[in-house]
Amino acid sequence: MRLLLINPNITEATTAAMVEEARRHASPGTEIVAVSAAFGTQYVENRAEAAIAAHAVLQALAEHAAGCDGAIVSAFGDPGLAAAREFADVPVFGIAESAMLTGWTLARRYAIVGLTQRLRRWYIECAEEHGLAGRLVSVRALDLPIPDITRAKEQFRDRLLAECHAAVAEDGAEAVILGGGPIAGLAREVAAELPVPALDGVACAVRLAEAVVGLHPRKPTAGSFVRPAPKPAKGLAPALFARITGSA
Amino acid sequence: MRLLLINPNITEATTAAMVEEARRHASPGTEIVAVSAAFGTQYVENRAEAAIAAHAVLQALAEHAAGCDGAIVSAFGDPGLAAAREFADVPVFGIAESAMLTGWTLARRYAIVGLTQRLRRWYIECAEEHGLAGRLVSVRALDLPIPDITRAKEQFRDRLLAECHAAVAEDGAEAVILGGGPIAGLAREVAAELPVPALDGVACAVRLAEAVVGLHPRKPTAGSFVRPAPKPAKGLAPALFARITGSA
Amino acid sequence: MRLLLINPNITEATTAAMVEEARRHASPGTEIVAVSAAFGTQYVENRAEAAIAAHAVLQALAEHAAGCDGAIVSAFGDPGLAAAREFADVPVFGIAESAMLTGWTLARRYAIVGLTQRLRRWYIECAEEHGLAGRLVSVRALDLPIPDITRAKEQFRDRLLAECHAAVAEDGAEAVILGGGPIAGLAREVAAELPVPALDGVACAVRLAEAVVGLHPRKPTAGSFVRPAPKPAKGLAPALFARITGSA
Amino acid sequence: MRLLLINPNITEATTAAMVEEARRHASPGTEIVAVSAAFGTQYVENRAEAAIAAHAVLQALAEHAAGCDGAIVSAFGDPGLAAAREFADVPVFGIAESAMLTGWTLARRYAIVGLTQRLRRWYIECAEEHGLAGRLVSVRALDLPIPDITRAKEQFRDRLLAECHAAVAEDGAEAVILGGGPIAGLAREVAAELPVPALDGVACAVRLAEAVVGLHPRKPTAGSFVRPAPKPAKGLAPALFARITGSA
Amino acid sequence: MRLLLINPNITEATTAAMVEEARRHASPGTEIVAVSAAFGTQYVENRAEAAIAAHAVLQALAEHAAGCDGAIVSAFGDPGLAAAREFADVPVFGIAESAMLTGWTLARRYAIVGLTQRLRRWYIECAEEHGLAGRLVSVRALDLPIPDITRAKEQFRDRLLAECHAAVAEDGAEAVILGGGPIAGLAREVAAELPVPALDGVACAVRLAEAVVGLHPRKPTAGSFVRPAPKPAKGLAPALFARITGSA
Amino acid sequence: MRLLLINPNITEATTAAMVEEARRHASPGTEIVAVSAAFGTQYVENRAEAAIAAHAVLQALAEHAAGCDGAIVSAFGDPGLAAAREFADVPVFGIAESAMLTGWTLARRYAIVGLTQRLRRWYIECAEEHGLAGRLVSVRALDLPIPDITRAKEQFRDRLLAECHAAVAEDGAEAVILGGGPIAGLAREVAAELPVPALDGVACAVRLAEAVVGLHPRKPTAGSFVRPAPKPAKGLAPALFARITGSA
Repeated sequence: MRLLLINPNITEATTAAMVEEARRHASPGTEIVAVSAAFGTQYVENRAEAAIAAHAVLQALAEHAAGCDGAIVSAFGDPGLAAAREFADVPVFGIAESAMLTGWTLARRYAIVGLTQRLRRWYIECAEEHGLAGRLVSVRALDLPIPDITRAKEQFRDRLLAECHAAVAEDGAEAVILGGGPIAGLAREVAAELPVPALDGVACAVRLAEAVVGLHPRKPTAGSFVRPAPKPAKGLAPALFARITGSA
Repeated sequence: MRLLLINPNITEATTAAMVEEARRHASPGTEIVAVSAAFGTQYVENRAEAAIAAHAVLQALAEHAAGCDGAIVSAFGDPGLAAAREFADVPVFGIAESAMLTGWTLARRYAIVGLTQRLRRWYIECAEEHGLAGRLVSVRALDLPIPDITRAKEQFRDRLLAECHAAVAEDGAEAVILGGGPIAGLAREVAAELPVPALDGVACAVRLAEAVVGLHPRKPTAGSFVRPAPKPAKGLAPALFARITGSA
Repeated sequence: MRLLLINPNITEATTAAMVEEARRHASPGTEIVAVSAAFGTQYVENRAEAAIAAHAVLQALAEHAAGCDGAIVSAFGDPGLAAAREFADVPVFGIAESAMLTGWTLARRYAIVGLTQRLRRWYIECAEEHGLAGRLVSVRALDLPIPDITRAKEQFRDRLLAECHAAVAEDGAEAVILGGGPIAGLAREVAAELPVPALDGVACAVRLAEAVVGLHPRKPTAGSFVRPAPKPAKGLAPALFARITGSA
Repeated sequence: MRLLLINPNITEATTAAMVEEARRHASPGTEIVAVSAAFGTQYVENRAEAAIAAHAVLQALAEHAAGCDGAIVSAFGDPGLAAAREFADVPVFGIAESAMLTGWTLARRYAIVGLTQRLRRWYIECAEEHGLAGRLVSVRALDLPIPDITRAKEQFRDRLLAECHAAVAEDGAEAVILGGGPIAGLAREVAAELPVPALDGVACAVRLAEAVVGLHPRKPTAGSFVRPAPKPAKGLAPALFARITGSA
Repeated sequence: MRLLLINPNITEATTAAMVEEARRHASPGTEIVAVSAAFGTQYVENRAEAAIAAHAVLQALAEHAAGCDGAIVSAFGDPGLAAAREFADVPVFGIAESAMLTGWTLARRYAIVGLTQRLRRWYIECAEEHGLAGRLVSVRALDLPIPDITRAKEQFRDRLLAECHAAVAEDGAEAVILGGGPIAGLAREVAAELPVPALDGVACAVRLAEAVVGLHPRKPTAGSFVRPAPKPAKGLAPALFARITGSA
Repeated sequence: MRLLLINPNITEATTAAMVEEARRHASPGTEIVAVSAAFGTQYVENRAEAAIAAHAVLQALAEHAAGCDGAIVSAFGDPGLAAAREFADVPVFGIAESAMLTGWTLARRYAIVGLTQRLRRWYIECAEEHGLAGRLVSVRALDLPIPDITRAKEQFRDRLLAECHAAVAEDGAEAVILGGGPIAGLAREVAAELPVPALDGVACAVRLAEAVVGLHPRKPTAGSFVRPAPKPAKGLAPALFARITGSA
């Protein structure tokens, strides 16, 4: 099975960290192929950056999905996930949704812990859009400057862990999701220190993708996830243009 | 007051039709400036096309919002509306949300009538994202091929009107929104034939924009609609790049 | 355009203050006509007083709506708003609902700040009845005696502003509505001191009424807002009796 | 135990019919005292008439509640129920809410069958206001002229029964509430012909009132059901004026 | 009227305490028959114990319901209540649901105060399953060891009362339910010290059962509460086996 | 990895069919161990039978979970799932929840198709309890006698398929879950004939269990899924008694 991991932002170091975590959790025989966004921002943390990232995700699918059995939108917040499901021929997974669905099987109430205050609202809206906010008890984040996002996982490990503990003790979380590509792997590293399951979006997405892709669900030909009919377009990257206009 | 009307798709004829309707409802002293998407598709009717359109809306704001007092995202479904509010320095309105809010003051239950079956799900999700689905009783649409979207308003007038009547009689709609840029103005034309208020998104957006802009609400410096801080980016159009990176 | 501003309580000084604020925000050509409740209480702050006020609003419409293009129920909490919409031949607006709908276009989460603790629950139920409680994060109010309600705006300006700041900082409000007729105008006065939009119900209602009335929506002849059929009655004021029994 | 049954409309024949049904279900030792609205309409079936009726209910409480242990607002739709609870010193029950709560103990899904189409929307909003709409599957009503409301129970018995059967067979109702004062007693008369429990609002209210009053719950001195503090008023009936202003 | 009070746990002392409270609130002519669970645990406070208790409730009904007019599931949390309603030929009441429904007529917001932290989540899920969580503001419980559950009522009276006061002052509760069979009667004992109604599940269930049973609702022959058709079974107690297989 | 498949009913043929389907979807290295309920009914289709089955599930866990890495409650409706999660030391999955969560990644709206009308309401309540009813558009079932539940899959294949098609065409389902142990495997057999993904509960549960168990989530020591503390009990099967009382 080949899975395409799409990093919706432009930071290669984050892509590399996520691929490493993905491969650690992949089953034998699962190949992880990765790509970073062709355009966008260093780190996605609000609605405007997510809007741009969603476009980049579609372009990445147009350019790289051929030959893959499934794809992963690998930024917490899942920019463009529903659009990607409509657009792609294979199942697509988001790291936020995957972690939430995994948490659904382990607990009644989950929390998300992320890097920045700015991310909080976007994460909440992500859960709402996914129809999974009913069990979200809190989104906690650091409230201090992040000088280097690619080193945040090491630098703020203790503070993030403290937020996880607070989510359990004060908010009643029964599972904690460590959200955000740059902290991929942190859930695994702190799991033993927490009294409830700690979940990593990338790990959950890889496992869930393997599970669902292995069921061989068909691409629908009815409903709102049918691939859109060809339509005139302009100003798009060649592969995306070709797929949207049906010229390829 | 100067309002920027952004058509999130690339069809100039639709832009022109919407501008005409906008000007018809504008108060004396309100100037309507219009722009079509620099990239995207002929007509936005699903999540994938909306994702691309949202990016185009931000780019249009970056390029054209200077000197405007407010902006209108002028495709029913409001692609990128929340992102645009975060991104812009002035109030931004969507034609779907504006029609829904107007209907809120006139009825307890509203319906949307649109052109194509494909649009239906997107419109529902638009209402859900806006937190306004609680009073939406149905989304009705034609179920036949639309050979020329720019002539659909004339060609399918009677069938669209029949759907409006069905929304009232069968679904209990107490207000009907005629949704979709290509049918801008149709609500006005059929209003006298319907037993409940008929609402046009463009008309509602212009009126609501005038109302709210005239209150001079401040751009927030707290909360999730604060303008995002500058951040490294790549691959974006110059004006958008400049605004996102803070280099302009 | 002529708008009838109905004060559902009996305090003329409050009526005068609201009219002044209304005229300040009205467009050229908009005339504001005002009337106080013919019966009721000095200030409406609970369900019982609101029930009486709703009757007074209908009576005011029966007596004064002729020749007006729209009406405003001008007590925060909107007593009798839905009944008034059913009853009147012209669009009717509430100052609470209008502020909420305006806030809907500017923020995802709004708070209300009012004068007394007693008002808090009524305001929450008002938002629920309007279907707009989904984004209401808190209702804050002073917790001290109000010796003279007509002078409260000046006397408690700083404390009310402090509650607004708390709504932003502690509750996450992204827009703050200053609720209550006696503090009409306070939102405008403190707007520059708050980091998010500050909204005044009277101002929002006047602007929204102008916007919607200008669309010329029809009085429905289908649905639950049709004018009730004539029916025997007794014990009502002459104009109200005449309108309800169809004898006028 | 003495219970005050308040008919919120002015039709004495309906009051008499409801009192008869109430006494039939009352326990030994329960006395039913009845009063019709001092003002209002022949029959309450929409929001405007309900607004007036709510005021009349408060006046009836002010004039007649002394010496009673509980009160019943005896029009389906429960005009003024929450206000009455705040206002009165004794527990107050609504015939709609009582039937809904009784149905809650017998079924997961209930329907309401009433006399006129106009009532339908008001009944739905009544269930919503009571927080009990989550299990309401439908509100059905006759769609024909009612020449004499006081004879409707006999005249339309078969048609109302047919709607009850349709509620079970088509809507999945597991309990059916026969709503509306003028058809008080019909549920009892048709119960044997229906495959699910048939509930009468007056009967349920009397039984529930006996149950709750017998628990001797205290009038709260905290929360939103505390009796409002005295306040200046004008234009009210003497007993109501005295109670509101605290002058009696 | 004869009511069967089923204690879903195995502690006879708790059964006795609940019967005493039940008889105190029963009307003349109401007979209370009691039975403890034939199997299960000393005290039900989580989902696993409740699952076992639900089975025991059905067995108790099969063994003891004959000759009774109604039954009460007398553990707060109402284990097996919906199943019991389906299974029994007579109306069945839960002490949690009964208290919630009673509170519904007295307040807009209620709280539950119980003995142990472990119970809190189960009580919340109970309210959710009953469709009555919309007005639940908090579930408070002691956070200390309970050496002897049968003496907890006396031993922790002051601490439980303190939680009740906190529910009113901090959570805004307008009615407080004292939950849990072992503290049956406590609500009555502390009622005078609280500013809002204090409700006891057993008391409410007896009163509500009398009210509803007296209406003589029929056992449904349509819908999901029809008695299940006979079906092969094994491993069940004789009376339960006989009722399920239809062999008795 | 070893997974314990628990059939909550007593029919060995159904257990065998489910095990076969489970093994078909299991990854290499996954061992499926199966057990039927020690007591209960032939087929679980209502709340009462589910209550007994939940107890049987706990007993099966007590007797057979040792040495397993995860468990599956293998009756659609998931009797006792939450209790089992609390009770067991390993992750537990339900075939209904697993199919719903899988569908969540593939569609916005799903339907369930089952064998009997009686099952419909239970399935809906299952989705509600799991917090996953928000996207459930319908539960469809045959409306005819099932002479032999173990042969129903072959006998009613065409009628079940017709219901699936109706769920797509009439209800707007974008994924269809074939629910019920006796029809395990049917989804796979009809998948190619449906225009949307067809999902089998057993298949989804095995795949999801593999995914989540492979993440090695910890048994919580905080929150409502902590294993209950030892407690006196009586009348339980030896292994269950030992686990509950802590004597083993």
